[in-house]
Amino acid sequence: MSEKREMLYEGKAKQIFLTDNPEEVVVKFKDDATAFNAQKRGSFDRKGEMNNAITTLIFEYLKEKGVETHFIKQLNDREQLVRKVEIIPLEMVVRNYAAGSMAQRLGVEEGIKSPVPIFDICYKKDELGDPLINDYHAIFLGAATKEELDEMYALTGKINQLLIELFDKMNIILVDFKIELGKTSDGKIILADEISPDTCRLWDKDTMKKLDKDRFRRDLGEVTEAYVEIYERLKTALNK
Amino acid sequence: MSEKREMLYEGKAKQIFLTDNPEEVVVKFKDDATAFNAQKRGSFDRKGEMNNAITTLIFEYLKEKGVETHFIKQLNDREQLVRKVEIIPLEMVVRNYAAGSMAQRLGVEEGIKSPVPIFDICYKKDELGDPLINDYHAIFLGAATKEELDEMYALTGKINQLLIELFDKMNIILVDFKIELGKTSDGKIILADEISPDTCRLWDKDTMKKLDKDRFRRDLGEVTEAYVEIYERLKTALNK
Ligand SMILES: Nc1ncnc2c1ncn2[C@@H]1O[C@H](COP(=O)(O)OP(=O)(O)O)[C@@H](O)[C@H]1O
Ligand SMILES: Nc1ncnc2c1ncn2[C@@H]1O[C@H](COP(=O)(O)OP(=O)(O)O)[C@@H](O)[C@H]1O
Ligand SMILES: [Mg+2]
Ligand SMILES: [Mg+2]
Repeated sequence: MSEKREMLYEGKAKQIFLTDNPEEVVVKFKDDATAFNAQKRGSFDRKGEMNNAITTLIFEYLKEKGVETHFIKQLNDREQLVRKVEIIPLEMVVRNYAAGSMAQRLGVEEGIKSPVPIFDICYKKDELGDPLINDYHAIFLGAATKEELDEMYALTGKINQLLIELFDKMNIILVDFKIELGKTSDGKIILADEISPDTCRLWDKDTMKKLDKDRFRRDLGEVTEAYVEIYERLKTALNK
Repeated sequence: MSEKREMLYEGKAKQIFLTDNPEEVVVKFKDDATAFNAQKRGSFDRKGEMNNAITTLIFEYLKEKGVETHFIKQLNDREQLVRKVEIIPLEMVVRNYAAGSMAQRLGVEEGIKSPVPIFDICYKKDELGDPLINDYHAIFLGAATKEELDEMYALTGKINQLLIELFDKMNIILVDFKIELGKTSDGKIILADEISPDTCRLWDKDTMKKLDKDRFRRDLGEVTEAYVEIYERLKTALNK
């Protein structure tokens, strides 16, 4: 069993720790929340615990469906053991409905369904505010090759289909989400980071109530409650 | 001969007038210059005249090389007769070197050559600041279909190659440019609007002196002189 060693880096929502196995790291989920490029900050009791549990259930589900992920096992309330990867500095965003930055950018109302999934890529660079870019920019930056991008879009699209199905069973609309992909030491591209209400927009189908980080971004209250609700519905949908 | 009638609309740099022929409009080039989404404004003696003359020479050159354009003929110092088109609300941008908004967005230095041309599309909508978008957004907005986008990129790439060759003969580096494409009444996609120092970044090969609208954007002075220089070199390169 890998033993936790010193912290490798600390992000806005998680800490990553080295282990005695160079191929594995520990992810520790914090209660911290940030939004708008970290200009807005908060902390929510049990958020870290919920995101750890939710990411665990979702990554296990995706693995069952044939998606390779970094997830190895949950260690405790806040921590999970994962494969260490080199994160590709591109946020892969999928949108089934217009919302958030896309709705603003295009000047359209939130909640319009897209006939087909919309893919965005953002350059993961805090100093630049994670700007939207396109494939040409990603290749120019050396972030990925054309072939890697094709593979990344295909993987992201597959994950979107599987997540739509899962959230559908939970009576939830998957509005949009972002994932991070990473390269393993043998050069494979796999799903890394997290999938949680921090990284998805999730609307209750009946009430359209937002059950995700927009409750924090937009000061809607009941942040922890929303995350707990997602966790409870996930457990039911997955018979856990 | 088409007769000029009432103004159809006025943009930041040009006015469009109806004619007695519903298929044709008159473009009148103004001396006005705007930058940064019209927050910065100026006016430069002879700019309209130069852009009219430069666009005329470039569109004639492109026509000779097999590119269909809206250009019919120059009418006088400031005006040209063109085919009326329905402008597709996408600015097609090509970048052979990093500069301007792309350099800023990606956090890279100006002047880095790209191994391959970089294509951007911006949603032409002043209220939104002509934001960078991607193909999925353009399709979602109904601005173009996938097939139209493919055709538009191919046309833009071809124009880039032809312009690189032309400016090369003028001892000028074509850093980047934007074009607007439009649909004719019979549904063909052709080159419209203008190609001028207002819409290109043009650097002298020996001195790297900017000979384009950046002289206005960045308060470098000698704006008219730069446009005249481009016109003179164009005439020589084209034996006019
Ligand atoms: N399997 C992994 N191996 C290495 N780094 C990872 C892995 N999964 C996620 N990370 C990285 O861990 C860091 C911490 O996460 P987080 O707090 O969400 O950061 P951020 O502030 O960039 O959102 C991020 O840079 C993320 O890309
Ligand atoms: N052949 C054409 N038919 C109709 N409209 C055109 C044609 N060529 C250019 N236009 C439009 O003329 C308008 C005026 O040009 P301009 O002053 O450059 O406008 P803008 O402020 O949008 O840059 C623009 O909206 C442009 O798209
Ligand atoms: Mg993160
Ligand atoms: Mg214009």
